[in-house]
Amino acid sequence: MATAAARAVAKSTLKTPVVDIHTHLYPPFYIDLLKARTEIPYVRAFPPDNQIRLVNRAADNGRPMVPHFFDVKTKIAFMDHHNIDISVLSLGNPWLDFLPSDTAGQVAQEINDSTNSMCAEYPGRLYFFAALPLSAPPSVVFGEIARLKTVPYARGIVLGTSGLGHGLDDPTLIPIFKALVDASLPIFLHPHYGLPASVYGPHGKEYGQVMPLALGFPMETTIALACLILSGCFTVVPDLQIIASHSGGTLPFLAGRIESCIQHDRLLDSKGKINNPTRKTVWDVLKNNIYLDGVIYDKIGLQTATATSGVDRIMFGTDHPFFPPLDGGVEWPSMTVNLKAAKKTYEREEDYNLVMGGNAVRVLNLR
Amino acid sequence: MATAAARAVAKSTLKTPVVDIHTHLYPPFYIDLLKARTEIPYVRAFPPDNQIRLVNRAADNGRPMVPHFFDVKTKIAFMDHHNIDISVLSLGNPWLDFLPSDTAGQVAQEINDSTNSMCAEYPGRLYFFAALPLSAPPSVVFGEIARLKTVPYARGIVLGTSGLGHGLDDPTLIPIFKALVDASLPIFLHPHYGLPASVYGPHGKEYGQVMPLALGFPMETTIALACLILSGCFTVVPDLQIIASHSGGTLPFLAGRIESCIQHDRLLDSKGKINNPTRKTVWDVLKNNIYLDGVIYDKIGLQTATATSGVDRIMFGTDHPFFPPLDGGVEWPSMTVNLKAAKKTYEREEDYNLVMGGNAVRVLNLR
Repeated sequence: MATAAARAVAKSTLKTPVVDIHTHLYPPFYIDLLKARTEIPYVRAFPPDNQIRLVNRAADNGRPMVPHFFDVKTKIAFMDHHNIDISVLSLGNPWLDFLPSDTAGQVAQEINDSTNSMCAEYPGRLYFFAALPLSAPPSVVFGEIARLKTVPYARGIVLGTSGLGHGLDDPTLIPIFKALVDASLPIFLHPHYGLPASVYGPHGKEYGQVMPLALGFPMETTIALACLILSGCFTVVPDLQIIASHSGGTLPFLAGRIESCIQHDRLLDSKGKINNPTRKTVWDVLKNNIYLDGVIYDKIGLQTATATSGVDRIMFGTDHPFFPPLDGGVEWPSMTVNLKAAKKTYEREEDYNLVMGGNAVRVLNLR
Repeated sequence: MATAAARAVAKSTLKTPVVDIHTHLYPPFYIDLLKARTEIPYVRAFPPDNQIRLVNRAADNGRPMVPHFFDVKTKIAFMDHHNIDISVLSLGNPWLDFLPSDTAGQVAQEINDSTNSMCAEYPGRLYFFAALPLSAPPSVVFGEIARLKTVPYARGIVLGTSGLGHGLDDPTLIPIFKALVDASLPIFLHPHYGLPASVYGPHGKEYGQVMPLALGFPMETTIALACLILSGCFTVVPDLQIIASHSGGTLPFLAGRIESCIQHDRLLDSKGKINNPTRKTVWDVLKNNIYLDGVIYDKIGLQTATATSGVDRIMFGTDHPFFPPLDGGVEWPSMTVNLKAAKKTYEREEDYNLVMGGNAVRVLNLR
């Protein structure tokens, strides 16, 4: 199933490294920034044990900021324990969306530089998706994109589904997308906002975080990607490359239904948007513009993702350090379950190697 | 892949009929009921052409009520044109959710009887999923369930995702589920409410009905099924059988992620709900309690559905008369696209016949 280019890479590599492309790290500078804040999002110590927690929403007590979240040595230890050769780090949510316009540019630069320095401590083991100062004026955003070309370990940018605050189908994002294509920086797309809690009904909270994490996140990603495709963005920026978290949310499964709904929509028809030869279908975009991570925890999901985008477009990931093992042990199911799914899915060694690292090495130039 | 029982049915049938288990019809009595209403939902004539439309939401102009929606002759003509032998009719949304408590029982009875009469006009061609008077007192609901056992063409009930108004994980539904099991009436689960329009962002409306229909509906179904599974309902009512619309929304694709989120959830762990031996996993429920219709418009989605639930649990459907062809022709893509997907997916004739009708004949006793 692999293309000639992908096969060439797979064959030319004596041992294909295992690459984790979905793995988060908050540089200590970012934790300090959140500690200094008095409004959500912030980091602060909570009683009774004074554990520091990152609070993203007024409704919850936040997430314990254990060293896995900010300590590069702990990340490397996690990688070593699980035989991960290379990690492509990204800032976790809430990224930089909350920064005031006038300081966002400077803060983004410091965060990207400090992440780059962490990567430089472990040459060849760490790369990263940079954060963009999206709340800053456009010139600042473009400036940071241009600067990232000279930041040695930056290999793309991490983007939330709200983009500049108005969704990924916001036309003002188009020049930014073009600048990213020109800079050869793919987008690592990640959910953050989920769905309104009301959609889980009066009993949704009884299931802990299952509804927002298991359903809200992938649905948010699916909506964002569908809006982006429907907006016609991929006609205007045909080379835009997106690495979609959690195997694209649910886009691979719903692609047929979305296309059918498009084909039956009177408004789109009246605008001449259905049979327009320049239209990129969901299938086109899944095959030419979207990479899917392998964070789907089962063979069936991984097969579906592979069927829509091709084995050249699936990249292994763990989502570390989210989903820590409940037993506090050193075996992380987020690694072992996704690894097992890949082993069961890709019976050909060549395909397995592409997904476990070959695709990331080729696409993100991890040499 | 088929079980022995399924194979026996497939072999014993000289020609397996083609059965459409997802096909809606509003009996004229129901249209008249909606015409008499002054509050949404209602049916009324709209200028400039006085076409009658069913309005479900204040935000839109509703759906044209062409004869496909209420005329049984038109349904039969659609079936004949597309070589459908049997249709299992269901009322379309908004069902009977809006009825006042004191009249719901009587209205449900009249609607079910009038649908049964339509089925009786075409013996062997039509069966139906009955509507329940969910807004009526429990005794009325139980009474109608008991009565349905004597209604010749009733083969189950249609249920919206909100159940009695508080979700499918509402504990007060449990006795109703038990009564349905006792009456051998499976539930045909159908979405209606979608997601709040805000989740599609400021540009979502530019894509006509694509976002609410292509994404809102399957996400609503997925949330409802996930809540039902998490509630532990299938431990208490282990024989509950649900036929899930639109191939389960996105449940087959997200099953692995939902299970992983359950395995990592501290609240569920603290309640002893994760490793509890009585817990039914998403996989258990998909294999033992859920049938998936084939309304997914592509081979990849159908393969995913089949991989999670087995070929014995997939049932062909069209969603007629929703999604009329834009060209006004007699070829309905909702039939032809789903048929083509089934042909591509099931290379073994035995499997194809099960999905196209054998499963429905066996499970719904369509003799």
